[in-house]
Amino acid sequence: MVEKRQPIPVAEAVHRVMDYAFQAKKELVPLTHAHGRFIAEAIRADHDVPAFDRSPYDGYAIRSIDSREASSQQPVRFQVVGEIGAGYVYDEVVGERQAVRIMTGAPIPQGCDVVVMLELTYTFEENDQKYMSIKRSFEAGTNISYKGEDVQQGAILIERGQYINPGVMALLATFGYEQVPVYRRPVIGVIATGSELLEPGEPLQPGKIRNSNAYMMMAQIERAGAEVKYFGKLSDDLNLCIEHVEKALQEVDVLITTGGVSVGDYDYLPAIYEAIDAKVLFNKIAMRPGSVTTVAARRGQLLFGLSGNPSACYVGFELFVRPIIRTACGNQKPHLRREQAILGADFTKPNPFTRFVRASAYYEKGQLVAVPSGFDKSSAVSSLATANALIVLPGGSRGYEKGMSVAVLLLEDKQGSEWPWDKIEKSYR
Amino acid sequence: MVEKRQPIPVAEAVHRVMDYAFQAKKELVPLTHAHGRFIAEAIRADHDVPAFDRSPYDGYAIRSIDSREASSQQPVRFQVVGEIGAGYVYDEVVGERQAVRIMTGAPIPQGCDVVVMLELTYTFEENDQKYMSIKRSFEAGTNISYKGEDVQQGAILIERGQYINPGVMALLATFGYEQVPVYRRPVIGVIATGSELLEPGEPLQPGKIRNSNAYMMMAQIERAGAEVKYFGKLSDDLNLCIEHVEKALQEVDVLITTGGVSVGDYDYLPAIYEAIDAKVLFNKIAMRPGSVTTVAARRGQLLFGLSGNPSACYVGFELFVRPIIRTACGNQKPHLRREQAILGADFTKPNPFTRFVRASAYYEKGQLVAVPSGFDKSSAVSSLATANALIVLPGGSRGYEKGMSVAVLLLEDKQGSEWPWDKIEKSYR
Repeated sequence: MVEKRQPIPVAEAVHRVMDYAFQAKKELVPLTHAHGRFIAEAIRADHDVPAFDRSPYDGYAIRSIDSREASSQQPVRFQVVGEIGAGYVYDEVVGERQAVRIMTGAPIPQGCDVVVMLELTYTFEENDQKYMSIKRSFEAGTNISYKGEDVQQGAILIERGQYINPGVMALLATFGYEQVPVYRRPVIGVIATGSELLEPGEPLQPGKIRNSNAYMMMAQIERAGAEVKYFGKLSDDLNLCIEHVEKALQEVDVLITTGGVSVGDYDYLPAIYEAIDAKVLFNKIAMRPGSVTTVAARRGQLLFGLSGNPSACYVGFELFVRPIIRTACGNQKPHLRREQAILGADFTKPNPFTRFVRASAYYEKGQLVAVPSGFDKSSAVSSLATANALIVLPGGSRGYEKGMSVAVLLLEDKQGSEWPWDKIEKSYR
Repeated sequence: MVEKRQPIPVAEAVHRVMDYAFQAKKELVPLTHAHGRFIAEAIRADHDVPAFDRSPYDGYAIRSIDSREASSQQPVRFQVVGEIGAGYVYDEVVGERQAVRIMTGAPIPQGCDVVVMLELTYTFEENDQKYMSIKRSFEAGTNISYKGEDVQQGAILIERGQYINPGVMALLATFGYEQVPVYRRPVIGVIATGSELLEPGEPLQPGKIRNSNAYMMMAQIERAGAEVKYFGKLSDDLNLCIEHVEKALQEVDVLITTGGVSVGDYDYLPAIYEAIDAKVLFNKIAMRPGSVTTVAARRGQLLFGLSGNPSACYVGFELFVRPIIRTACGNQKPHLRREQAILGADFTKPNPFTRFVRASAYYEKGQLVAVPSGFDKSSAVSSLATANALIVLPGGSRGYEKGMSVAVLLLEDKQGSEWPWDKIEKSYR
């Protein structure tokens, strides 16, 4: 039986999916495992940085007032009364014409208000006493990193939901996060469907193809920030399929099937959704590729039915699954990052639906340019490997010409968009 | 003792380091673990894709010649002689006015040269025989994905040294890579130095700071594609330090120390290099931050002595260590990706040396704009967290103004540059 399907706009489809967005639980991980995760609490400075006035250079700490008369004609000499390395504190108060040899990072001794860089000093000894002389004056505050000048205690440095990059790791270490609160990675199940599918280790057979979507999606899932659970291939028996899906749903946060969503007689998904009492949110979208993308929900849990075509599957994942994963991770910009780019080649084929063209985006003198990556049938697996963007071409009767400004969605980007869809429609008006 | 140091240009320093670049050994990993690695062999198509003429849609396979007379006035009817799902082969030859119900992905039956989409057909039964009728003619080749039209057997799809992204995963699965040859991740050792350092779990003490560089670099090392081995902190005893470094060198491909490279009296690194018979490639670079970055080599093995200042350490890693890691992974563009951007804010402070300013790079209508991220002392840890680029400002007597075109190095980018340095110098002439 062929069901009638009503295509809905992309933005509407994303909206319907996002109604089921959820946030993952928090967990603590050791700092050494925090890179690449999303932080579950704002990072607040528990102390000033620097925590004390400190020297940014190797040199001598002195009182500026003592340098006032110094010149190349009349160098001023200081008695070197001590030395202080990073990590130590000089306990005495430094007096008139006294200097303390100070290392990078060491606290400024009491009384001093200048660090003279080593290169600007001349040192010598007289009667077993060390001296240092300078040939110019210094203003108070020269070469001092003041307490709190980088970060003030109580400041919020990173909002929750941010990706933990190397710089964030430095902050976490600085503020004593031996254990880091992060969002638990959501678990995304993957099931492949299709009698034509062989696993990568199997030899080719007539009429069959190797299952590439499941492996492609494993990487997409990881890139988005989630964990993969692969449940293999659905059988050709409907009852076994239903059991298989029921079991998978109990072990994952979100379940993706690939294939089985077109209108073919052998596509079991509608029957499976019905059997498990899942509500179909939509089963057709006004887009290419991926028009038959189906999403259903059962007791708040999302089931994504992505196309069996690699490109359609790829696009369906990035548009609909990725924002669910990123939202689970607490991220405020869960959608693909959207930017404007110059179309680098004609795309003359008019199409009634919004088209997502996999593309290579690069810069020409700082201007983002996007060129469709090669052959663009929705089955073409080869162009996915080099694509780092999707060009978004809204449907209409005309084609698009080289040099036009087009919206692109960046695939390898960590930053994301809050809601790219309104802007995309506007940008072509 | 304070040694004299001769600053060398950045490009020269990178050159000297790259003389010691090496390539990691290959290893096989299961396809499920290949994402994020670098491929160690070119991926060659072991078969055509599609491997057979196949249907991209659900519909009916027919002979185009039989559709010639079809019109809305005079629909042509076909006898439905069979049906074929993806993964199966239809064995008969299809004859005049015969049609085979065909599912997406199924091989085109012999004799047929058109697939009519299901939506354009009308089906009915007469005397227990199924029929299908169409109201228009179709040209030969309509809706057929021809054997080899996506990829031809023998084509090289991905060169060795490429990053394995989701699209590459799809290719690997398609061409039967159950095991994937990748470059072994180089092992990068990290040792922190400095009496002032506390570990993140320790409470603050006067004059001391928490060790942030080691944790920051762990993330930088992972981001670059290598494995981290953390050896903790060097002691204050020179002989123990030498043992510590010797032991670490035996367990890693490359060793990084952070701190201990300035000219302070307590900095042991020069003595350690001498004791272990390492040749210092340079110990001063005409750049800020990170001018005291030191690199040494012992029996072909690199020892990076990065600054203890977080920003200097960060920059030193990205400029000098990253390309060594990426080269080990077989990548042909091992350096940070360099692009031109519009400077988004004045940077008036003139400086004699090339300056790397951590920055936030973003797009304005597709144009890359880079704005220094906040406070820019080399110790400032807070601005590293939000930086996604380094603005490169060559040394000179003038400052730089908002709106100028400047070179930037992108930090979160997967792509890289072959050799960014010549261009950077040229771009300011």
